[in-house]
Amino acid sequence: MGQLPSHLLEPVVAAALREDLPWGDLTTEALFPAGTRARAEVLVKRPGVLAGLEVFGAVFRYLDPEARLEVYSPDGTEVQAGTVAAAVEVDARALLAGERVALNFLNHLSGVATLTWRFVRAVEGLPCRIVDTRKTTPGLRLLEKYAVRAGGGANHRFGLSDGVLVKDNHLALLRRRGVSLEEALRRLRHRVPHGVRVQVEVTDLEQLDEVLSAGADAVLLDNMPLEALREAVARCRGRAATEASGGITLENVRAVAETGVDLISVGALTHSAPALDVSLELR
Amino acid sequence: MGQLPSHLLEPVVAAALREDLPWGDLTTEALFPAGTRARAEVLVKRPGVLAGLEVFGAVFRYLDPEARLEVYSPDGTEVQAGTVAAAVEVDARALLAGERVALNFLNHLSGVATLTWRFVRAVEGLPCRIVDTRKTTPGLRLLEKYAVRAGGGANHRFGLSDGVLVKDNHLALLRRRGVSLEEALRRLRHRVPHGVRVQVEVTDLEQLDEVLSAGADAVLLDNMPLEALREAVARCRGRAATEASGGITLENVRAVAETGVDLISVGALTHSAPALDVSLELR
Amino acid sequence: MGQLPSHLLEPVVAAALREDLPWGDLTTEALFPAGTRARAEVLVKRPGVLAGLEVFGAVFRYLDPEARLEVYSPDGTEVQAGTVAAAVEVDARALLAGERVALNFLNHLSGVATLTWRFVRAVEGLPCRIVDTRKTTPGLRLLEKYAVRAGGGANHRFGLSDGVLVKDNHLALLRRRGVSLEEALRRLRHRVPHGVRVQVEVTDLEQLDEVLSAGADAVLLDNMPLEALREAVARCRGRAATEASGGITLENVRAVAETGVDLISVGALTHSAPALDVSLELR
Amino acid sequence: MGQLPSHLLEPVVAAALREDLPWGDLTTEALFPAGTRARAEVLVKRPGVLAGLEVFGAVFRYLDPEARLEVYSPDGTEVQAGTVAAAVEVDARALLAGERVALNFLNHLSGVATLTWRFVRAVEGLPCRIVDTRKTTPGLRLLEKYAVRAGGGANHRFGLSDGVLVKDNHLALLRRRGVSLEEALRRLRHRVPHGVRVQVEVTDLEQLDEVLSAGADAVLLDNMPLEALREAVARCRGRAATEASGGITLENVRAVAETGVDLISVGALTHSAPALDVSLELR
Amino acid sequence: MGQLPSHLLEPVVAAALREDLPWGDLTTEALFPAGTRARAEVLVKRPGVLAGLEVFGAVFRYLDPEARLEVYSPDGTEVQAGTVAAAVEVDARALLAGERVALNFLNHLSGVATLTWRFVRAVEGLPCRIVDTRKTTPGLRLLEKYAVRAGGGANHRFGLSDGVLVKDNHLALLRRRGVSLEEALRRLRHRVPHGVRVQVEVTDLEQLDEVLSAGADAVLLDNMPLEALREAVARCRGRAATEASGGITLENVRAVAETGVDLISVGALTHSAPALDVSLELR
Amino acid sequence: MGQLPSHLLEPVVAAALREDLPWGDLTTEALFPAGTRARAEVLVKRPGVLAGLEVFGAVFRYLDPEARLEVYSPDGTEVQAGTVAAAVEVDARALLAGERVALNFLNHLSGVATLTWRFVRAVEGLPCRIVDTRKTTPGLRLLEKYAVRAGGGANHRFGLSDGVLVKDNHLALLRRRGVSLEEALRRLRHRVPHGVRVQVEVTDLEQLDEVLSAGADAVLLDNMPLEALREAVARCRGRAATEASGGITLENVRAVAETGVDLISVGALTHSAPALDVSLELR
Repeated sequence: MGQLPSHLLEPVVAAALREDLPWGDLTTEALFPAGTRARAEVLVKRPGVLAGLEVFGAVFRYLDPEARLEVYSPDGTEVQAGTVAAAVEVDARALLAGERVALNFLNHLSGVATLTWRFVRAVEGLPCRIVDTRKTTPGLRLLEKYAVRAGGGANHRFGLSDGVLVKDNHLALLRRRGVSLEEALRRLRHRVPHGVRVQVEVTDLEQLDEVLSAGADAVLLDNMPLEALREAVARCRGRAATEASGGITLENVRAVAETGVDLISVGALTHSAPALDVSLELR
Repeated sequence: MGQLPSHLLEPVVAAALREDLPWGDLTTEALFPAGTRARAEVLVKRPGVLAGLEVFGAVFRYLDPEARLEVYSPDGTEVQAGTVAAAVEVDARALLAGERVALNFLNHLSGVATLTWRFVRAVEGLPCRIVDTRKTTPGLRLLEKYAVRAGGGANHRFGLSDGVLVKDNHLALLRRRGVSLEEALRRLRHRVPHGVRVQVEVTDLEQLDEVLSAGADAVLLDNMPLEALREAVARCRGRAATEASGGITLENVRAVAETGVDLISVGALTHSAPALDVSLELR
Repeated sequence: MGQLPSHLLEPVVAAALREDLPWGDLTTEALFPAGTRARAEVLVKRPGVLAGLEVFGAVFRYLDPEARLEVYSPDGTEVQAGTVAAAVEVDARALLAGERVALNFLNHLSGVATLTWRFVRAVEGLPCRIVDTRKTTPGLRLLEKYAVRAGGGANHRFGLSDGVLVKDNHLALLRRRGVSLEEALRRLRHRVPHGVRVQVEVTDLEQLDEVLSAGADAVLLDNMPLEALREAVARCRGRAATEASGGITLENVRAVAETGVDLISVGALTHSAPALDVSLELR
Repeated sequence: MGQLPSHLLEPVVAAALREDLPWGDLTTEALFPAGTRARAEVLVKRPGVLAGLEVFGAVFRYLDPEARLEVYSPDGTEVQAGTVAAAVEVDARALLAGERVALNFLNHLSGVATLTWRFVRAVEGLPCRIVDTRKTTPGLRLLEKYAVRAGGGANHRFGLSDGVLVKDNHLALLRRRGVSLEEALRRLRHRVPHGVRVQVEVTDLEQLDEVLSAGADAVLLDNMPLEALREAVARCRGRAATEASGGITLENVRAVAETGVDLISVGALTHSAPALDVSLELR
Repeated sequence: MGQLPSHLLEPVVAAALREDLPWGDLTTEALFPAGTRARAEVLVKRPGVLAGLEVFGAVFRYLDPEARLEVYSPDGTEVQAGTVAAAVEVDARALLAGERVALNFLNHLSGVATLTWRFVRAVEGLPCRIVDTRKTTPGLRLLEKYAVRAGGGANHRFGLSDGVLVKDNHLALLRRRGVSLEEALRRLRHRVPHGVRVQVEVTDLEQLDEVLSAGADAVLLDNMPLEALREAVARCRGRAATEASGGITLENVRAVAETGVDLISVGALTHSAPALDVSLELR
Repeated sequence: MGQLPSHLLEPVVAAALREDLPWGDLTTEALFPAGTRARAEVLVKRPGVLAGLEVFGAVFRYLDPEARLEVYSPDGTEVQAGTVAAAVEVDARALLAGERVALNFLNHLSGVATLTWRFVRAVEGLPCRIVDTRKTTPGLRLLEKYAVRAGGGANHRFGLSDGVLVKDNHLALLRRRGVSLEEALRRLRHRVPHGVRVQVEVTDLEQLDEVLSAGADAVLLDNMPLEALREAVARCRGRAATEASGGITLENVRAVAETGVDLISVGALTHSAPALDVSLELR
């Protein structure tokens, strides 16, 4: 079991290959006989942080169980343009058939890791952590959350089944049904495993006080001005963990971190990270 | 059967929901009983082009077969910030449980459509078409290629099974094995259905001449300077379709298009499009 | 969306039917033509608590979309022998083909609910909660945890992905590798979402003190004598939640609860609950 | 191919692991790096009969293809408390991640084997066989029927597709539709492969006579008093195989067997067998 | 539940459609908007027996839940060239997209039914039954066995899990291992459910005598001359069912049947039946 | 990666085995212990062309990863009756359990290859190619198209997603909606990747002229008399590829080829090829 257990990687890899070559690779099968070995290098073309070499290798192993990957710059490493990060030795047909799918994983995940690492560097020295959200690409959450960790970030809950966050739309519906926040938290504690903390979203200090007195374990401070954030952090000290979210950019993230919040969540890490340019060069 | 047949949408939707709520939505199930209806609106927060309302609706119908979606700005429409593009009426639990997954699809696909549309607008009035590549997000190719069309672009081959493109790594391996281009094209025409055209990648004019005399149906002109592109287009006229690729940006795309190429392929359409900000507001 | 969202029930139901009638019901198909309706009643034969009527109904709806279930004693109800808990109206072939599978679910889940409810009643009036474990029947965890709630119990974490429990084998391996408990908890807080509490297993008071000073959020007090349990509860007050486990029976559970522990976990709820005798009678 | 072909085991194992660790093992991945080997022993804590060591091993091999299982007390062996039945050598992460799932299979199946073996011992020396029913745990029929054989029992039909049993609800529906038993048997022989015997349920001697003259190959004598059973056996001799069922316990099973029936079917073997206590101890 | 329960048909239909249009129907989607209804008729072009209208309809319903099929000549009917056997009303896109897949099922299954019916007619008036074998098309056994019944034939066992047939290769291996036939039958009766008859293959009368005295329930008389068959039937009377197989054609089947065998199995029914020409005509 | 990548073969093989032995092989498991090796030979009983040895071998490897296949007459070889084409060494249980499924693939695919090769030989010396159609057996298209190539034929498009063919029913619906052929081709070129040629079906010379002037890349000349075919070929020269279809038999195919058409498509290759008789003999 590596960082990403192979039984979790394999279905994702299989689905990606089925999508790209549902009945084989017309070009490669016509041009080359089976049985030639080839070697190719993973060449980094823009600086960044790598993530996804394990799934990259799994693509080739799926097509050719004899495929061998040598990794020189493991996931989480900061790399410069020109770095040869890894090399793969594999059947030539599998190389040509799997190249694009393997790179699609590597480029995307390295893009996520690179953007995360930019945010992490921007708050360097402060106790605050950069965390992801559920705004992930459908089907890739496991991998994207892994890439966030590779970039130095931390993970928020995986999804709706393993964490509790009472959001604006929940609160609106509770109000409409005349259910108080105290009652809501009571219901949650009754239903939810004792290992799960309850977090509630607030958008101003008044709501914050209400949520704190209802006994939430953590608060999501959504789209609050810096001043209010600072005050919120003060009120939460010793009572609830604080997470800032909404409109966070590389430009403003340090200022937000300086308010003292414990966590800053950034949807863009997974929904808007441009791919990192990495290619596969035949040697 | 709509634009995206429901039997193709459903497995993608099911996988995305299994990923986000593998054993249900802890928060929502604790807070609300079954059986309440709710209504929410799809609110556009940044200008762009929408894509994915069909899959957005499919998410809610998967959780609640009675879900109803009213669409005011269908896929492919240019929308402004503040537009209410659609409304959904659905069981309140399904609304809260499905909101994030539905938006993850809509925001990502609208991001792809919006970026495509920017490229398409940049070449407006020229006969050239903007096309996608195989650099798609694993698992989402069908949807992303649909979003490219929604943004006014055209599709390249779907994958390795339905089109033929002899790329740099194929050419290198052919050379190493002493196989001529003529022989390669002969093998391809023997193996490949007659309805499939054969396209070959070239990076300079010398290669182009070789490829044209070998009888390729189309050429991929990769990373060529504008001057060379223009000359290549002239040499291909009446003999082969021309596609430019490599390093295409919103800044240089019009100049590339003015060389007269038939197609410009842009990997960034699918691998680096930032999500379009669209939210779901409870009413 | 009911208590168990239908998209979670359907795969379990489909797998159970494929198992029992992979190529149809020989007897029923030979004996009866399609198209006859039948009505049958769910008759309770031994007192207990019902759970699983939703999945019971889903079996018949899977075979016949027109199947209708009327529920008189919903899940969680205490029922006496002789109670007619529900009735189903359905195609006669579907009734005969689905009867056994539907009852297999209902009898097993009601068995779990009934045993849970006996434990819950045994600690009535005390603040302690009865919780389940991961000792569930492979493939049925979702349903069995639901049945535990139907019987008045609470759920522990769903599995290894959504909760943290450092158990005896972890501790042994940590010791062997020279990793301190403080370091272990540091690693966990770095890796694990902030919404997840960290629980550590201890078997005596010395270990407990170490774990408390390392800062665990909860402790699992495994197989400790009542005296030690009482002392452990005192030491944890205001610092960590307490869970007792190991050798809990209907005979000793009240004494354990009286030590003041917050939770008592009982593997037998799911691994050794005898089925509740409920049958389906044609009317 | 072992007793349980691996292609039949693997999907069950994969589903159980997906259920317990859908996105990995939070605790173990945080605490231990990949690549450490560990050894653990299967320790029997209560006397019984083992079943499921093959699937137990398959769980670890699924997580770590290098996992090695040494079996000292194979399935079907009667074991005492304190027996070390097997040992596994495996990656430490795989050990911790797979332990619970592997034991859930082993404990449940050994529970089934143990209960079966108690029934088998109770009728020792008599020609009668103990057989299972279709009252199995959904999803585990293959494994539970294997466990019944490990405990010395025999299998009834696997399900509705491979055997014919005309039960009370079939008979009631036949009567209501005016179909005679002769006609029913005629329909069955026309539809059913010639290798399949036709069995019919009866509850008294009058029905038995009718069924025998209609030409059934076997009868299910449901809930009949000992006296009637004895008489039924006499009337069936040389004409039809006899199976007793309904209310069979360890207390009365020998008396039932002494009536001379060929088979005694016991639903409790699979629906109410308590788990056998077996644990995994790190060495 | 019809003759082929829809939960058994749907996966086969879904797989066939995924195979033919994995990412949609390029031609139809380009040419026609969604939402037009169309009507088409099933036109028989060569005389034969129909089978597969249910699966034919299921293809269209899969693409368009509103699809309606009217059947004029149900499965099992003998039809003449020119017969309009059914009509389908359906979304025009679904009609064009599903036509080929629907016909592929219908033509193949009707081919199987037609060939079966020719064999059945050839033995008309004799007590012998025509049965299928396991020589079916991979993936289509359920449907092909249904088609055999539609053509008036009967089914042999479904596969290796539900019936026992000791064949030449089993016998050779038994001999090599020094296992007698008596011992073999003893092992089978111990392992196999009591509802399953044991059949043994023989190729001459000497073997037959051995098999009969070992107590087989049925014999497979493989490739025996008519004279020997007749004698075999005489020896088996009252002791074992008789099945003839090997080299059966439409020309010799009646002579074989006249020997008095109970069953004649014909592999060609499913492995060599030419498709029946049936087309779909737009109205 | 061989001619048929193993990741494409395995699901087909797994499904075929699940169909034949969903819960194991009753006969073999009862008779033989695990662990005996056996060797068997593939014996050709009728002359033909082999196809499917790769999938034949995959069946045994699925049941026994140690299985070894030696191939003496590879796919595509013309073989005589009595040829030993291959030998397999494998666990005896796997041999007996997998024999029928492995042969079902081999016999059917060799049947397809043999029939194709008869057509190919019939047009020997002429430039025309024999191609398959979409009239394949549901679930086996990949394999059947491979078998057509093994027999010397060529493949038409794989399905509806990767090729464009405007057929009679499309044309009828276009006419009814008042859409001209020019407009139809315009829509297709807008929607379809540039690598895909557009083919249109015609049944007489008048339609042909219309289609040629609309600019189709290829025409399907359906059911046209030889005279008209010859004239059509003349009119298409240098403008469009020509494919003849409809009512092609071994008797008339050479005459059709002599008209000069580029391709002749024959549905019977895949929908009506009788199985080639090949057996597996234990040595």
